[in-house]
Amino acid sequence: MNIETYFKISYGLYVISAKHNGKMNGYIANTAFQVTAVPAQIAIACNKDNFTANLISQSGAFSISILKKETSAQTLGTFGYKSGRDIEKFSNVNYITGSLGTPILTDDSLAWFECRLTNTFDVGTHYIFVGEVAGFDLLDEIAEPLTYAYFREVKKGKAPKNAPTYIAPEAVKPEKINEIYYCPACGYIYDPLTGDPEHGIPAGTEFKNLPDNWTCPNCGAEKNDFTIK
Amino acid sequence: MNIETYFKISYGLYVISAKHNGKMNGYIANTAFQVTAVPAQIAIACNKDNFTANLISQSGAFSISILKKETSAQTLGTFGYKSGRDIEKFSNVNYITGSLGTPILTDDSLAWFECRLTNTFDVGTHYIFVGEVAGFDLLDEIAEPLTYAYFREVKKGKAPKNAPTYIAPEAVKPEKINEIYYCPACGYIYDPLTGDPEHGIPAGTEFKNLPDNWTCPNCGAEKNDFTIK
Repeated sequence: MNIETYFKISYGLYVISAKHNGKMNGYIANTAFQVTAVPAQIAIACNKDNFTANLISQSGAFSISILKKETSAQTLGTFGYKSGRDIEKFSNVNYITGSLGTPILTDDSLAWFECRLTNTFDVGTHYIFVGEVAGFDLLDEIAEPLTYAYFREVKKGKAPKNAPTYIAPEAVKPEKINEIYYCPACGYIYDPLTGDPEHGIPAGTEFKNLPDNWTCPNCGAEKNDFTIK
Repeated sequence: MNIETYFKISYGLYVISAKHNGKMNGYIANTAFQVTAVPAQIAIACNKDNFTANLISQSGAFSISILKKETSAQTLGTFGYKSGRDIEKFSNVNYITGSLGTPILTDDSLAWFECRLTNTFDVGTHYIFVGEVAGFDLLDEIAEPLTYAYFREVKKGKAPKNAPTYIAPEAVKPEKINEIYYCPACGYIYDPLTGDPEHGIPAGTEFKNLPDNWTCPNCGAEKNDFTIK
């Protein structure tokens, strides 16, 4: 049984948002899928611990922003690896408000849906929330959606601990380098064999030789925060 | 509200199979998603009318074969656009049997899961079946999974009527050609502007000039079966 099997399921990446009693929040999900055509209903899987889960349950609505392939590390870091209990995620981003009152992130988003909650199913650690589509629109006709495969292979991102697809680092086969430094916030692994050419770090650069102001290309965490595996 | 929004949700394509009382069947789905990590559970959305839905409910198990990008028109045609009430889909294909007794298609498949049904949720026209992973394996480390985006854009395939993502042809904006011939079995639209170069039909070939033995490149239906939109 090869654990890589799990990575062969195809997903997009989305920001799921909700608002209740004036508090807005959103998180990054890879599980959003249409489950019926008439009426159009979309299901999402949401960890019960997610702050947004409460907002969805209480407001009876959620939005889905479909992220672009070129989504910034800032958006991934803010919505993917931080909790709305600690920060106000919507304070420095662009968003619109749907007819149900839900915030809909438009930064780095190519399309969106707003859904009225129709069912909540308990599947253990997560809820499956099902919502009927109340509104939707395309924001960018040309942009391609960010897929989980691209996020993992090209951006070297990992699912956060609350994700349905989380796999513990120790379950993944070790790479052939002596010391693996990884980002404790998002799981990004710095690989000296490839470096970080997008940010001026050539292949072959050891972790210790990275400049002090280098930050995680996935979520923006600082170099000092990185940990040896 | 642009209907194209719906096509921005990312999906893979899978054959979902089950067996009960000696009868095996499978169908093509785009909705297979991991919903919890501990234990690993996968959810699928299945039309209540699908013959396989009964087999899953009665046997309490299902398998998921992850299709390869290069999946043949024969596999797509057999499992995607024909009913197990009319034909025996597993009679001429390669498959293995999982520990729960479920047939697992291995033709055109790069990996598979076998799941024990843990929950069945009614969402209207469809059930969401949730299953705990009982076994899985990778069959091909190199092959890429077939995505719905690739199927639609490159193979010009459409979701069948029972799919959660089905959209009526009339809802899609018409193309700028006089007569649009489409496959009533799978919805494939023959576009004379692009032809079917993969099968020797150059761009610019009118539908009426296609050879009589030309078949739908998506599902294998015959030229005579094509209909004018």
